[in-house]
Amino acid sequence: MKKTALLFFAATIAASAQMWQLPLMPWPASLQPASGMLTIDEHFSITATGAADERVSSAISRLYNRLSAQTGMTMLIPGEPPAHAVLTIECRAAGKPVQANGEDESYRLVVDPGGARLAAPNALGVIHGLETFLQLVTPGPDCWFVPALTIDDSPRFPWRGLMIDASRHFIPLSVIWRELDAMAAVKMNVLHWHLSDDQGFRVESRRYPRLHELGSNGQYYTQDQIRATIAYARNRGIRIVPEFDMPGHATSWFVGYPELAANPGPYQIGDDWGVHDACMDPTRDTTYEFLDNFIGEMTQLFPDAYFHIGGDEVNGKAWAQSEAIQAWMREHNIADKHALQAYFNGRVQAIVTKHGKRMEGWDEILDPNLPKDIVIQSWRGQKSLAAAAEQGYQGILSSGYYLDLMFPASKHYAVDPMEGETANLTPEQRKLILGGEAAEWTEYASPEIIDQRIWPRNAAIAERLWSPQNVRDVGNMYFRLEPVSQWLGFTGITHRTVYQPMLDRLAAGQDTRPLRVLADVVEPVKEYAREELMHNTQQTPLVRLIDTCRPESDVARQFGTLVHGTITKNMWRYDVRYWLTLWRDNDTYLSPMLQRSFLLHDAIPVSQNLSAIARVGLDALDAIESGTARGEEWRAQQMQIIADANKPGAAGVLISIAEPVQQLVQAVK
Amino acid sequence: MKKTALLFFAATIAASAQMWQLPLMPWPASLQPASGMLTIDEHFSITATGAADERVSSAISRLYNRLSAQTGMTMLIPGEPPAHAVLTIECRAAGKPVQANGEDESYRLVVDPGGARLAAPNALGVIHGLETFLQLVTPGPDCWFVPALTIDDSPRFPWRGLMIDASRHFIPLSVIWRELDAMAAVKMNVLHWHLSDDQGFRVESRRYPRLHELGSNGQYYTQDQIRATIAYARNRGIRIVPEFDMPGHATSWFVGYPELAANPGPYQIGDDWGVHDACMDPTRDTTYEFLDNFIGEMTQLFPDAYFHIGGDEVNGKAWAQSEAIQAWMREHNIADKHALQAYFNGRVQAIVTKHGKRMEGWDEILDPNLPKDIVIQSWRGQKSLAAAAEQGYQGILSSGYYLDLMFPASKHYAVDPMEGETANLTPEQRKLILGGEAAEWTEYASPEIIDQRIWPRNAAIAERLWSPQNVRDVGNMYFRLEPVSQWLGFTGITHRTVYQPMLDRLAAGQDTRPLRVLADVVEPVKEYAREELMHNTQQTPLVRLIDTCRPESDVARQFGTLVHGTITKNMWRYDVRYWLTLWRDNDTYLSPMLQRSFLLHDAIPVSQNLSAIARVGLDALDAIESGTARGEEWRAQQMQIIADANKPGAAGVLISIAEPVQQLVQAVK
Repeated sequence: MKKTALLFFAATIAASAQMWQLPLMPWPASLQPASGMLTIDEHFSITATGAADERVSSAISRLYNRLSAQTGMTMLIPGEPPAHAVLTIECRAAGKPVQANGEDESYRLVVDPGGARLAAPNALGVIHGLETFLQLVTPGPDCWFVPALTIDDSPRFPWRGLMIDASRHFIPLSVIWRELDAMAAVKMNVLHWHLSDDQGFRVESRRYPRLHELGSNGQYYTQDQIRATIAYARNRGIRIVPEFDMPGHATSWFVGYPELAANPGPYQIGDDWGVHDACMDPTRDTTYEFLDNFIGEMTQLFPDAYFHIGGDEVNGKAWAQSEAIQAWMREHNIADKHALQAYFNGRVQAIVTKHGKRMEGWDEILDPNLPKDIVIQSWRGQKSLAAAAEQGYQGILSSGYYLDLMFPASKHYAVDPMEGETANLTPEQRKLILGGEAAEWTEYASPEIIDQRIWPRNAAIAERLWSPQNVRDVGNMYFRLEPVSQWLGFTGITHRTVYQPMLDRLAAGQDTRPLRVLADVVEPVKEYAREELMHNTQQTPLVRLIDTCRPESDVARQFGTLVHGTITKNMWRYDVRYWLTLWRDNDTYLSPMLQRSFLLHDAIPVSQNLSAIARVGLDALDAIESGTARGEEWRAQQMQIIADANKPGAAGVLISIAEPVQQLVQAVK
Repeated sequence: MKKTALLFFAATIAASAQMWQLPLMPWPASLQPASGMLTIDEHFSITATGAADERVSSAISRLYNRLSAQTGMTMLIPGEPPAHAVLTIECRAAGKPVQANGEDESYRLVVDPGGARLAAPNALGVIHGLETFLQLVTPGPDCWFVPALTIDDSPRFPWRGLMIDASRHFIPLSVIWRELDAMAAVKMNVLHWHLSDDQGFRVESRRYPRLHELGSNGQYYTQDQIRATIAYARNRGIRIVPEFDMPGHATSWFVGYPELAANPGPYQIGDDWGVHDACMDPTRDTTYEFLDNFIGEMTQLFPDAYFHIGGDEVNGKAWAQSEAIQAWMREHNIADKHALQAYFNGRVQAIVTKHGKRMEGWDEILDPNLPKDIVIQSWRGQKSLAAAAEQGYQGILSSGYYLDLMFPASKHYAVDPMEGETANLTPEQRKLILGGEAAEWTEYASPEIIDQRIWPRNAAIAERLWSPQNVRDVGNMYFRLEPVSQWLGFTGITHRTVYQPMLDRLAAGQDTRPLRVLADVVEPVKEYAREELMHNTQQTPLVRLIDTCRPESDVARQFGTLVHGTITKNMWRYDVRYWLTLWRDNDTYLSPMLQRSFLLHDAIPVSQNLSAIARVGLDALDAIESGTARGEEWRAQQMQIIADANKPGAAGVLISIAEPVQQLVQAVK
């Protein structure tokens, strides 16, 4: 035993030896390596020529700060732009006063040992090119450097967004701002801000102040804060599209204005999850007068050309319960709830248009009677996106990009807006597919953990929406995702740093290492399974194992690589044994902590199940090493043990090494 | 091999099973456990009675936020104070308008299952008592709780400070504020703010604006920021004592005002370390006119009764080089530089007194001709403290509490202001010892790493200065230090979270685990050894292994416990083998990363030396396990290998497992 090397980093080392891959994400449209490198030191300097756009000077100032954060160097920023700067920027023309969908975002970056040149048609390309430049700054054998190369880059889709739900959990401005920094770092250009829902109305309305006063528990953004955030986003090449969900998902409106609702009040802010019945009354003109005033106010506040009205998940119960609405429907020959919602959408669309905006909404708003300038956001899949395009509507894809469903980056990465039903569209119809949006619904995301829920997986979605369609190798993506995730930390997001304090809170003074061993290999249950396993509300602290563990276990993925090597090439067996032994024995050390704290009681069986699965793995590994045949009965038993151990219990987590251990069992003779 | 449990957490588990120790630090003067516990949930509420002091309402508001951060609960703060609050506070009298040294800081906290009662003579005791309450909040078997008990607490010393040097590296206000939060958490009550030195003048002076304009590279605090910080500190029971170092350590003053200096200018801000020669001219009346105006301005800005003039490390070279000063000394019968500095101090003391303050200075200002109301801060040891007290001067101890010297918490913890020479003082003289101050000089501390340099070790010093003298068991201190360190993270300091991004920067995209294995067991060289090994300036990025590793290795300390168990009780041998094998093999995985980056080149031999020491340890462990005798020649060879491997090289780090491995070698027959 004593001469056995514990090669537990073998897979990582092997991967890094395999290739030297620049840590760029999204991968550029075109990259030509050259020879040599450009040294980056504290004398780094920039000059900009061309159009005056304050976004360029803002981006330059941020670049100095980010370089300092990445490298630890105190940059000696020249008071005057130097005659021969290390990086020269040419911004050919001023951008539009309000960033528009489809504005040119291309840039060309040429780096050689003598300097770097970034050229772009407008400030958007400059902003994107500077992020590419920062991703390239690396410590080399002698100094920090950027490799010589030429990059010609532009996005595949014009609309690359992230939706953040600020209603289920209020997300403070400081968090929104750091998400904007991280979005800009991966060249996303739309923040879709979900600002109202049953659980909270999050914007100050001066016209209807009871919306935020009674609908938010005091947790809302002031109009000044909204304006500052729009400016912050604009400086980073990001548009902000506000969403006010209607006619459903609107309970929080009714607390202050029950007269908007289909049924009499009083209403309270919803504090639990799922589809609520409360709904606006689409049959009264006063509803539209209210919406006209409100949308008028909000379209003044939000300069973007698009205005999102939600429109999803109207279950019709509130309408069915209202005799007045039922009578009105009969009177107006409106057959069912779908027709009634279409009527509502038509009237709201007219209001939105009157205020100079294009209406956007979720799948459900699609109706052939609506004009063609609306945008459909698909949460149901490429099929509804294709249906919309066939009818001449623009669309964006969110189905497949729901970060709150806890899927691995690879699963999101594989989803393409132009595959499935959309692949059969005509070239003209394909142009109607504007791009996509990742979505972070916040039933299970507090300000503390939201960064870790969004990142780094969102970087893979950003690549899908920016990079050429043929950039799709999953291994290559994961190889770049780790360095990009590290690099994203220097934008200020906390997705890597929040783990330790979360473990600290659970460990309550004990050594966190055994807890980390467990948390490293479990993942939250997927899709909507959490709702079946536990009853959470807005007040439920999100501090348990399910909230602490990451949506995707890197350790388990790496272990899968080791197991694959063991099975296919007889490699890395010692590593596999190391990890399995660690997991088998961990419960011995962790169990006292789990027993002591109510926060960890639900993890007691999880820790035991990890041991059980590891024991199966060790047994299989013994058989593989010794060449012993075990027979099908044994195999069936072992597979059953793993399946039983990986049933999500009250803790709501999955043991993510279950699958590679199953592969070990399958590999036994 | 396959049945061997890797019991690498054994020491931790054993320690936690040994006793149930409340995670309080500083330990209170008196604690009486009682039976039962008080449940803490989101309905937690507070009422306060007694004197109106806005510090009490501020502390209550912070308590709600901290409870929320610690537990993850959204506190349902009652709009009106409830009739039966969970915690009732009685603040008997308003405190002084400017917090004074020696003001009563005592409190009594009684917790029983029905509620908690905190009573204090004034707001200071309330502030301290609430921190104690927060330290007691723990997750139990069913809920968050505070154990029933009675605490009667008051500090041993009235002056419990932390000095922060904002000159060598500018420390932004946001960092200062979070240090104040963490200081308050361990009941420290003085921030000694070192605001000027050769390397930077950090306060806006309206009377002499070239001080900050030319002496700070733009990195200074405005007077508004200073006032806000004083208010922030006051709300947390902390006084702020400003230090403006004179007549030496003053190069930054001379950039804008060379006429103050003993030698003609021009001067530049010092950007390297060590004692600089530049010094004020103590022979010209214009110097004192300047200081009168300047001190007049600053004593208006800083309300504290004490004003620190530094006075340390005047090497006299500047005076020796000035013929005018030499002539003046002869004319006035001033024998040497010491007498000249005493003359300077006398005149400055008169100015400070005229402006209504008591003068404080380092050891060197001690002179029997100065009035007895000054305070001596000893950086040389208890001897000079005793000498001052014998002459009737008040003093505080900083020797032994220099956090920048990278000593373990245990070493600081063992230093007592009342031991050594001070132990022989008369009772009256002992009253002149006001307490002590930890000191964080920032030659090697940037805003990024300063938290990790100060904490958690500063908590042990805070306990030494607050708790009764007989609270001094080192094992017990360390047992509490880990939970207190975790808990301190919820005040907002980054001492635990900065490690991952520092490792990320060094790893530059690679898996950080092998680097962490190394960084976990190395420590920066101690005392002033770094200056011998590398030339650093203000511009040197503090991002290398020496800056990333912690001043004290917890892993090495725990390994020492395992080795002790192996040697004395034949326990934990598997654990010792686990760790030694990990360290022996780590270089294989780490070496490629170290080769690739200039930031890690200096760590190449360190990683190899860790392997070498681990090999020696495994060899010794084999001999111990098999009962083999190896002889003295072998022992001498092994000790030499360890000694050679632990010589600090260019990386400037020590391998902190060297000592326990030496113990293993010694234990071989």
